[in-house]
Amino acid sequence: MKRLFKGAIIITANENFDIIYNGILGIRGNEIAYVGEYSSEFEKDFDADAIIHANNKVLMPGLINMHTHLPMTLFRGYASDLSLDAWLNEKILPAEIKMTEEDISIGAKVACAEMLLSGTTTCLDMYAHAETISDVLHDSGARAVVSYSYDSEAGIEKTLELSEHCKTFGDGRIKSIAALGLAYDGTDDEEAIRQFIDEAIKNNKRIHLHVADTNEQTDKCVKATGMTPVKYLEYLGLFRANVIAVHCISVTDEDLGILKQNNVSVVYCPTSDAKIASGFAPVDRMIGKGLNMCIGTDGGASNNNMDMLEEMHIGSIIAKGASKNPSIMNATETIKMATLNGAKALGIDHAVGSLEVGKKADVIMFNHSSPFFLPENELCNNIVYSASRNELEMTMVDGKILMERGQLLKHNYEKLASQFEESVAKLTT
Amino acid sequence: MKRLFKGAIIITANENFDIIYNGILGIRGNEIAYVGEYSSEFEKDFDADAIIHANNKVLMPGLINMHTHLPMTLFRGYASDLSLDAWLNEKILPAEIKMTEEDISIGAKVACAEMLLSGTTTCLDMYAHAETISDVLHDSGARAVVSYSYDSEAGIEKTLELSEHCKTFGDGRIKSIAALGLAYDGTDDEEAIRQFIDEAIKNNKRIHLHVADTNEQTDKCVKATGMTPVKYLEYLGLFRANVIAVHCISVTDEDLGILKQNNVSVVYCPTSDAKIASGFAPVDRMIGKGLNMCIGTDGGASNNNMDMLEEMHIGSIIAKGASKNPSIMNATETIKMATLNGAKALGIDHAVGSLEVGKKADVIMFNHSSPFFLPENELCNNIVYSASRNELEMTMVDGKILMERGQLLKHNYEKLASQFEESVAKLTT
Repeated sequence: MKRLFKGAIIITANENFDIIYNGILGIRGNEIAYVGEYSSEFEKDFDADAIIHANNKVLMPGLINMHTHLPMTLFRGYASDLSLDAWLNEKILPAEIKMTEEDISIGAKVACAEMLLSGTTTCLDMYAHAETISDVLHDSGARAVVSYSYDSEAGIEKTLELSEHCKTFGDGRIKSIAALGLAYDGTDDEEAIRQFIDEAIKNNKRIHLHVADTNEQTDKCVKATGMTPVKYLEYLGLFRANVIAVHCISVTDEDLGILKQNNVSVVYCPTSDAKIASGFAPVDRMIGKGLNMCIGTDGGASNNNMDMLEEMHIGSIIAKGASKNPSIMNATETIKMATLNGAKALGIDHAVGSLEVGKKADVIMFNHSSPFFLPENELCNNIVYSASRNELEMTMVDGKILMERGQLLKHNYEKLASQFEESVAKLTT
Repeated sequence: MKRLFKGAIIITANENFDIIYNGILGIRGNEIAYVGEYSSEFEKDFDADAIIHANNKVLMPGLINMHTHLPMTLFRGYASDLSLDAWLNEKILPAEIKMTEEDISIGAKVACAEMLLSGTTTCLDMYAHAETISDVLHDSGARAVVSYSYDSEAGIEKTLELSEHCKTFGDGRIKSIAALGLAYDGTDDEEAIRQFIDEAIKNNKRIHLHVADTNEQTDKCVKATGMTPVKYLEYLGLFRANVIAVHCISVTDEDLGILKQNNVSVVYCPTSDAKIASGFAPVDRMIGKGLNMCIGTDGGASNNNMDMLEEMHIGSIIAKGASKNPSIMNATETIKMATLNGAKALGIDHAVGSLEVGKKADVIMFNHSSPFFLPENELCNNIVYSASRNELEMTMVDGKILMERGQLLKHNYEKLASQFEESVAKLTT
């Protein structure tokens, strides 16, 4: 199958952040065969099976949501307006204990629907029953990197099993990563953690984890270990691995220096951090240190959705307001954070994160014939600050169109909604 | 014309915040004739001309956007990422000087389109050429309160002329208000301001104005007058009038006490305040004082759109994050701020702001058959934190449907877009 998008504005999101007007994007199977200005010779030579007339459309790489707990969509709106501690320990954990594999699957399916409806093509997930989640993700057509939510007592075995499971899909769309879940309160089993890290490195697995989620966590860690969470992780030898650190609300400049020195990628989760009142990550200082910054929604229970377009918008304006610096996270930088930077953090930037020849065809398309897209020359500003998923017309992953004009092409929504309501009723009572 | 919406969930947003399941809403002409649980007797007696089967729909009062500068939509995305001072003085003011009445009209038309597409039925506007803006608003079908953006040297005459102009529409949909534009730097003509306030009170006009927009403005005012902006306004005798104070970023607890004592309503503009890096208004302290809190988008140049659904979401989570209190601005409180509280501030809560018998039929309708609305019992949470204008199906003002399934019923969008691009090109070069 050869598809040709013709006449579109193309935000490549490549290193130069080239934007092409009156562009064409040629897709052969699941790969990008051509991206550039319109050329009638190419159109003729390419001899596409389908030509999409894309005047008034904007094409850009699919968004990469760098922190999700997909099944937690089941807890959307449940126990709102509580602190992280009360919300997690009194409400969410007791509900999570009751979850069956079927609940996991249903929650993850709804989260996948939201992602595809709002332009996300790849997510980095962390949750129990990761095999089940990987099945849902593969079925949905999305690309993903999945992981178990490990505590310090668990070994690397389940991560390696998950890795084998992902290989059985055969198409490389779903990959796995290691995840560490630490308490940071002096109770973590240091020996087990060091061993986990060694095994992850030996098996070529990146590690992602929550770091300094709240001021309280940092205070607890300092009290118990004499070190900030980042310094504690350094002491545990974590940074010998490729690391993705999520949240990082409460970090010193020295901590950020350690993260930078060790090429750690940081995932900013602005909506979740704000909504649960943890505060605002110091994005200005992180960017100042030159860290590879990514964006994640976090789970649907604390966000409360999987909409990365919203997340880019909210993340950018909170960073400006919190730092009193209006130039932080401008529109192009924000788009990079939600695309190429995520791919780099995951080590898959050879395959996704920008529209470039040879990469996989993970593409989203906006209709910019909307008041929210006026004026036309402020395209990136309008995507980040004004438009929304309402203007999104298509989500394509691996060359396959999965969402078109608000319709998911692989979903039976009514059945899913009724199963979802049943699971919610069971878990939250 | 009698319309009956049947089977919907109705968020009345009345003082008790009653939510009705399997409800009916009867509309006679431009007024609400019935709101309550389904009753077959009522359905028969009412004998509607049109019955709208509204299962899977949510009805609520239209949103009230309490701070707009409609024509500034022309400057959307222009000169992004600058400080308020540089943005306003170096970019926006020089462009505004070039604006003709035609530009004003075109900018306001696009802003009206955005409002109706995102569920706003009433706005409070402040800008030059307010008569032209009132014409656009009346033509659009929306409800509004308009004003000139007065500086301290201007008298009340134009406000009174505007008031007479609004009366000529004959349907009471467009009203006027007084507005004061102060420099707060010692250059304001105190005698003229006192006279303006006297005349406004004599003519029964509420007054709205920007107050303590930034820390810099407060510092400047303290240096020039020895008083905070709020105390300076008290000294000028402003609070003898009914007052709506916009922004209030930089205010002391004593200032908030003065506002409360004088029944001043406060308009929170979270997106604009954050994006332009002014900071975050102390919403927790404002709510703590018991102030009547409203929400506004501010102009499209600094927001960058007129989407009040987004504004409720962003406003709520920023308030939680900034105060480290997750219970501030919960979903129902946020909806009140965007509906009934605005109507109270404008003195039109007898007519709009909630779905109650005898009020005008300003109604919006969501389709809640969407993954973003699951689970169903978390309705208000889902409206504020998860759904978006993508799920909005209808905007009705004064009994007339102005937007249905994303289509504006009174717009020629293509012509408008090309005029808009022409105006933008002229103004920003």
